[in-house]
Amino acid sequence: MHYAVIMAGGAGTRLWPAARRHSPKQLQRLIFEQPLIAETVDRLTKVYAPEHIFIVTASRYAGPIREILPALPPENIISEPVGRNTAAAIALAAFQIARDDPDGVFAVFPADHIILQPEILYRALDFANALALAHRVVDIGVPPSHPETGYGYIELGREIESRDGLRAYEVEGFVEKPDRATAESYVDAGNYIWNSGMFVWRAGEYLTALRELLPDTYARLEGPFRSGDWDELTEAYARIEDISVDYAIMERTSDVVALPVDFGWRDIGDWAALYDMMEHDDHGNAFDGRHAYIDSENCLMLSPKKLVAAVGVRDLIVVDTDDVLLIMPRDRSQDVKALLEEVKERDHGDYL
Amino acid sequence: MHYAVIMAGGAGTRLWPAARRHSPKQLQRLIFEQPLIAETVDRLTKVYAPEHIFIVTASRYAGPIREILPALPPENIISEPVGRNTAAAIALAAFQIARDDPDGVFAVFPADHIILQPEILYRALDFANALALAHRVVDIGVPPSHPETGYGYIELGREIESRDGLRAYEVEGFVEKPDRATAESYVDAGNYIWNSGMFVWRAGEYLTALRELLPDTYARLEGPFRSGDWDELTEAYARIEDISVDYAIMERTSDVVALPVDFGWRDIGDWAALYDMMEHDDHGNAFDGRHAYIDSENCLMLSPKKLVAAVGVRDLIVVDTDDVLLIMPRDRSQDVKALLEEVKERDHGDYL
Repeated sequence: MHYAVIMAGGAGTRLWPAARRHSPKQLQRLIFEQPLIAETVDRLTKVYAPEHIFIVTASRYAGPIREILPALPPENIISEPVGRNTAAAIALAAFQIARDDPDGVFAVFPADHIILQPEILYRALDFANALALAHRVVDIGVPPSHPETGYGYIELGREIESRDGLRAYEVEGFVEKPDRATAESYVDAGNYIWNSGMFVWRAGEYLTALRELLPDTYARLEGPFRSGDWDELTEAYARIEDISVDYAIMERTSDVVALPVDFGWRDIGDWAALYDMMEHDDHGNAFDGRHAYIDSENCLMLSPKKLVAAVGVRDLIVVDTDDVLLIMPRDRSQDVKALLEEVKERDHGDYL
Repeated sequence: MHYAVIMAGGAGTRLWPAARRHSPKQLQRLIFEQPLIAETVDRLTKVYAPEHIFIVTASRYAGPIREILPALPPENIISEPVGRNTAAAIALAAFQIARDDPDGVFAVFPADHIILQPEILYRALDFANALALAHRVVDIGVPPSHPETGYGYIELGREIESRDGLRAYEVEGFVEKPDRATAESYVDAGNYIWNSGMFVWRAGEYLTALRELLPDTYARLEGPFRSGDWDELTEAYARIEDISVDYAIMERTSDVVALPVDFGWRDIGDWAALYDMMEHDDHGNAFDGRHAYIDSENCLMLSPKKLVAAVGVRDLIVVDTDDVLLIMPRDRSQDVKALLEEVKERDHGDYL
């Protein structure tokens, strides 16, 4: 059988003040019809039965997620006892899936990514599932549209199989977020793709790899999972290594294949990224409600309940929520993290 | 007796979105304890009995003003049937005062000006009242602190009388809003003062001057005032000339004296002017509520109910009301008028 595992543990603080400590990015609607995680689940229910969709999240988000997604079995919302990064988070789902269906193939998806052309994703999943059944580990990547410095890249080797217009490649290596010049060389080279954080694997084989590559983690988690004792699991989980699935497993596993797929993938990492993916008017401005302006360009102004009125501003981001008003130039979007330190510093922690 | 006549007919659209078509600047609190007109009346009740304070305003503002100022006799809130500028608006009050007390001395005050040192104003009024009793027309002006191009100026002639540290001068002439170089030459010359729109006159003598200088206006208004017929007055008022008291009367009257008084006068003409008069923090920023920022300078950010959070912005004005969010550089404050045309153009006239 096929399973989807949605990773929903992060907070997405660079999208503050929409994302909050107790209501993270994946629970936010931003400019969409419904919260990002609901968009992701809706997309996946086209190809997965609800009882085959799992969500791994921080325990404080589990309740809100169950409320947003009543169609999923509550036990499919898996709480991480504490944050221990993706290798362990995926293990929580893999143990649960493998208990009933060790040959089950699962695909991992970030909860908060946008896919503009889901039909192409579905085709890629068909291919990836077939590759996983043939004992491959499939890393679904994205052909780069520009020399992005915010993502990791996968270097492609020789083509090993093609189907339905898609080609799977051997992986030459994984590379960390590059500097600008390196990113440009990757785009020019043509055999590098963005690492999107989606991959497809057999549950039993993930656990085998975990046992080999993170034996301590495997050993600590296996017992509590067999006994089903939450307290024991919590205690064990606190002691395991905090490491990503990329570092711990993907980069150290043979049989990984990369599948470049151009399905309109967007990772809304910060407000500038949201601006980039929105529709712009003739002056490059993006709004989510009523507005009137003169002599203003390339701004993102979100204030759905108000008239936004501007004179003479450029490249500005304004985000107006019920209790916070954020203003910054677009090219300072990454500095929201530093701003949150200042918010804390000034004893306005309630707003985090 | 002494009377105060408060001119409250203007809309103050450059302070939109605080000032609205149906709720003009003088009815707004802005950053103060109470609406500007209430601040003005409070200041004047220290030296005028409430029944001696008159307010001339547009008919649509009369109701709200009576609500804000229940201590004033309702009949002292005088409605202009239509807007016909200050010469006629003052005539409405002068007719009413002169009916019972033709020798009464009245002082005209804008409703929306700030006076930081009212005690000095009171002293000036004592002197001005004495001068008016001696059949002078007294124009209270303000020694310029900088070469402001937004005000008219009064050129002072020889000193004619002094009292209590204040000196009254003959008026050499009135000059319109000057350009920058001219304004600088006025400040350097030392014998020019700002025209603040406050003056003191006997009610009967104002009407005498009106009869001489605007005979048509006088003739049209006198009858209805004698009969007390509002419909007749409305019809007459619509037909009279639209002209300011400065043009029509002050500049053409002998016996005008100017009284320069430095009483911390502020005309909050636009948001930049409000920023100027507010207290600034070490980075030149002015707020009216909770805030946290990094690397931001010389901004005015008004959003009393929210946390205002900013990164990397300079010389910006942000005004957040219940239904409008305004953003512009400080040096574009005058362009709010043009912005309102755009608001209208885009069918958002409800927000005006």
